[in-house]
Amino acid sequence: MAVPPGVSPADFAAALAEFGRIVGKEWLFTSDEDLDLYRDSYSPLAGEPDERVASAAVAPKSTEEVQAIVRVANRYRVPIYPISTGKNLGYGGSAPVYSGSVIVDLKRMNRILEINEANAYVLVEPGVSYFDLYEHIRAKGLKLWIDCPDPGWGSVLGNAIDRGGGYTMANYRNHFDSHSGMEVVLPSGEVMRTGMGAIPNATTWQQYKSGAGPLVDGIFSQANYGIVTKMGFWLMPEPEAFLRGVVRFPRYADIHTMVETLNYLENARITTGFPDLDSPLLGSPAVGAVQLYNEGLRSFPMTDAHKALLAKADNGYSPELEAYGIAGKIPYWQLYLSYYGPPEVIAAQWAATQRRFGHVQGVTFDILEQVTLPITTEQAMQYHEPEFGVPSLRAFSIGARTAYNPEPSHGHMWFSPIIPRTGAAILEANRVFGAAAREIGMPLFQSFALPACFWERSFIFILATPVTEDPATNRKYVEGFRKLIEIGGKHGWGEYRTAPVFQEAVMDVYSFNDHALKRFHETLKDAIDPNGIIAAGRYAIWPKHLRGKPR
Amino acid sequence: MAVPPGVSPADFAAALAEFGRIVGKEWLFTSDEDLDLYRDSYSPLAGEPDERVASAAVAPKSTEEVQAIVRVANRYRVPIYPISTGKNLGYGGSAPVYSGSVIVDLKRMNRILEINEANAYVLVEPGVSYFDLYEHIRAKGLKLWIDCPDPGWGSVLGNAIDRGGGYTMANYRNHFDSHSGMEVVLPSGEVMRTGMGAIPNATTWQQYKSGAGPLVDGIFSQANYGIVTKMGFWLMPEPEAFLRGVVRFPRYADIHTMVETLNYLENARITTGFPDLDSPLLGSPAVGAVQLYNEGLRSFPMTDAHKALLAKADNGYSPELEAYGIAGKIPYWQLYLSYYGPPEVIAAQWAATQRRFGHVQGVTFDILEQVTLPITTEQAMQYHEPEFGVPSLRAFSIGARTAYNPEPSHGHMWFSPIIPRTGAAILEANRVFGAAAREIGMPLFQSFALPACFWERSFIFILATPVTEDPATNRKYVEGFRKLIEIGGKHGWGEYRTAPVFQEAVMDVYSFNDHALKRFHETLKDAIDPNGIIAAGRYAIWPKHLRGKPR
Repeated sequence: MAVPPGVSPADFAAALAEFGRIVGKEWLFTSDEDLDLYRDSYSPLAGEPDERVASAAVAPKSTEEVQAIVRVANRYRVPIYPISTGKNLGYGGSAPVYSGSVIVDLKRMNRILEINEANAYVLVEPGVSYFDLYEHIRAKGLKLWIDCPDPGWGSVLGNAIDRGGGYTMANYRNHFDSHSGMEVVLPSGEVMRTGMGAIPNATTWQQYKSGAGPLVDGIFSQANYGIVTKMGFWLMPEPEAFLRGVVRFPRYADIHTMVETLNYLENARITTGFPDLDSPLLGSPAVGAVQLYNEGLRSFPMTDAHKALLAKADNGYSPELEAYGIAGKIPYWQLYLSYYGPPEVIAAQWAATQRRFGHVQGVTFDILEQVTLPITTEQAMQYHEPEFGVPSLRAFSIGARTAYNPEPSHGHMWFSPIIPRTGAAILEANRVFGAAAREIGMPLFQSFALPACFWERSFIFILATPVTEDPATNRKYVEGFRKLIEIGGKHGWGEYRTAPVFQEAVMDVYSFNDHALKRFHETLKDAIDPNGIIAAGRYAIWPKHLRGKPR
Repeated sequence: MAVPPGVSPADFAAALAEFGRIVGKEWLFTSDEDLDLYRDSYSPLAGEPDERVASAAVAPKSTEEVQAIVRVANRYRVPIYPISTGKNLGYGGSAPVYSGSVIVDLKRMNRILEINEANAYVLVEPGVSYFDLYEHIRAKGLKLWIDCPDPGWGSVLGNAIDRGGGYTMANYRNHFDSHSGMEVVLPSGEVMRTGMGAIPNATTWQQYKSGAGPLVDGIFSQANYGIVTKMGFWLMPEPEAFLRGVVRFPRYADIHTMVETLNYLENARITTGFPDLDSPLLGSPAVGAVQLYNEGLRSFPMTDAHKALLAKADNGYSPELEAYGIAGKIPYWQLYLSYYGPPEVIAAQWAATQRRFGHVQGVTFDILEQVTLPITTEQAMQYHEPEFGVPSLRAFSIGARTAYNPEPSHGHMWFSPIIPRTGAAILEANRVFGAAAREIGMPLFQSFALPACFWERSFIFILATPVTEDPATNRKYVEGFRKLIEIGGKHGWGEYRTAPVFQEAVMDVYSFNDHALKRFHETLKDAIDPNGIIAAGRYAIWPKHLRGKPR
């Protein structure tokens, strides 16, 4: 059995014995077989000496048990690493940042504590998955939708804490933004409630986010200042209908007006669903929603002549390629837009959308889907389920062996920088990252990549860097990934989230004024968690005794 | 000249001399005449020994000057109290929480650093008022709207830091929520940028809120951990048209379905403008928008018979009053709903709204306003200007002597508790607060009060407790106000914001687990501001050396 660094075997044994007494022996895991489950199955460092691994795992059932675990960890200075449920694949899995930490696995805290249909909110524990919440809502017959990311086994609370996103209406798809209120076990072992939850018999904990005085919730996201044991979320009322349309643009330069008008439509709330960008002419699939459920939409097969032109294009452009597209009616760009609401409203929104794009020469509009709601789970499977509030695991079929994908995946690391919401930024990011990736020899930005629209005001690339079975290739990709982060930083682009193996590199980019923000995080860490027991190293925040070492 | 408590006259003189060297003597204020301008002209303690007053004021022009001031304050342990611009009337004015503090007046930092029309954002300094920003946008001819509270002289940044709200589209009207990125001078004198601004050449500081790692922005709102010197905001694109309709309900019990359907319409984004609740039968004016610009809408004059029935109603209800209303076609409740967007969209939203209320017996619908945009500033004055993104000072006419208001106001303190978004909560809050206010002898909740809808998911009462010319009456109201806070807390209701004189009482309500949240705030305070120089006592957060004293 591994022992956490800096802890004596005797102290660790004593701590484990106490953990066992707190949760019951069957919920304390120390065998290699059990601990294998907490390894990151997408880790590019799998089996290497610097793979991050746990020394043990403990699974409490209640906030009180979490408090007791934290107190014991403090007493013996045992580093602990809380996880919720689900897998977090591509962002580091369940493995700790600091090797040797004890995983505090919150999967057994899986109660839906309150759900309110009229006010459309829920209060959950960390172990509640999207599937759990969906099934609960269906069983109760509530007219509420959840917003989930592609993997439905994820934790509603955990994904929000990691600042993940989903696919329904803005702003529901910003999972941290759509929360209201937290309960946190602090490193001292004390329980704190935020927002209106700080009122002992609160009536609006899930209705008003802020409470009075400093709003502290944000510092518990992507952080290590406490263990969040309850969290409230605003849910989306079941809409009456859904419409998806596609707007097609013939020319390369149309990317600018496409993005600018999309921004207007979203900022004015004329379209509220998840937008997808696509380029049939560049063979670049939409990153997000549309691609997943229906490859059949890709109704522009690529000829050899087309491929030859594409190979010679410069950052996705040549006059010949554009002429080829116009002649063959293959759009340079496609914008999928979706709408939720009463049928007459979404029809009017689609009409207004067409009007706002009407000045673009050669633009075309088609309605792809019109769905009267509610629909059953089975019906939702005809579409990209998360856009209908239905959790799924179907996204994992992308990496599986299929007709479209003869080479099954061994895993991936998500490279996900935020870039400005302009056409120019898409072109520049492709030019910069494309050149870098080709130089490094990484299979990213190979022809042209389009960003996703999870967030309201910015674009984000969500690109899968493959993990292979060859350690040398993995090392190369890890170093290459770090290089891309650094290059992005020089252009003012930063990642929104990343796996532990890249957290130092990502946070190094956020370096204004000699890393003032990082030093502020450290000031908070020292004050809130003086022994540095919770999630050491998460997002490059190390406790004092581990700070400043090379990683 | 007053000297801050705990500072020797010699040290204070030395600090003032240094302040003068930093900003120039003409921007250092020490005369009573100058300092009078920093007193709270609505203070219920005006002229009393416990009125909160400044010892001096200093007005820097730049972030660098703020840094220098903070460093001097640290050296001499001089308490400082930053303010932005505007008056903050009803919430404490410009006076410090801790008497004797030196005001750091940021009004001269009034640059609009960047404004982007296509991506609809702005980056401002603290001294930029709503008027400034509005004029800047008009002068440049940008198709952008601002969201302002009623007093247009307020600071865009300062109002957001105080977590104030406005009147346009959700969520633009939540001023803190609609920010993206901050620059903060920390108590050490160091400058920190948050979110994507932590990347030295950031391109998305105003496009993506979160950055990576802990999201710290919230702890600088309603707090005293630093001085915010820059802040970005998302602006609303100019809409094509505006529609306001009114839905009228005949029966007392309709309040429940009115609120529940309003919630659905807002949560599903079918209506996006500011809703107003009103009761012609109870003579209760809408709190927010409609009342201000057009008393003429109040087209249900009150007869003596009506008044007599009202006097006998129990918490706004009697069968006789309801029958009187139905016979005279006087609605019990009115719900004003407003819509921004393309004409065909808002027409469809209004149609869908009527359909969603169609099941209510006796409900009626009327369109009050249909406005094609843009309109001029002068045209906006026909309406409640802030709903058209136009700042104004007209709200102050409410307290002035008019035909409607023969008794001009000497000022007021805003009592503003958050309550749940249900009809039942409106009735319960009226019963509880009404009984308490009558017992105390305070002119609040006299007949029946309806909450406002600034925030998306909760209601808020915004009730003016008068300030009079009689110190004894003011004392009684101050004590009564504190009592109402305490009573609200017992029912699970808390204030969203309050004047310094009530901050201890308000924060005492947020007491879960022996004031765990407050103690957490103190932990942060001690770590971030060890000398406790910034805004001591703000929202009841005192530095260590001032903690635990009776206030």
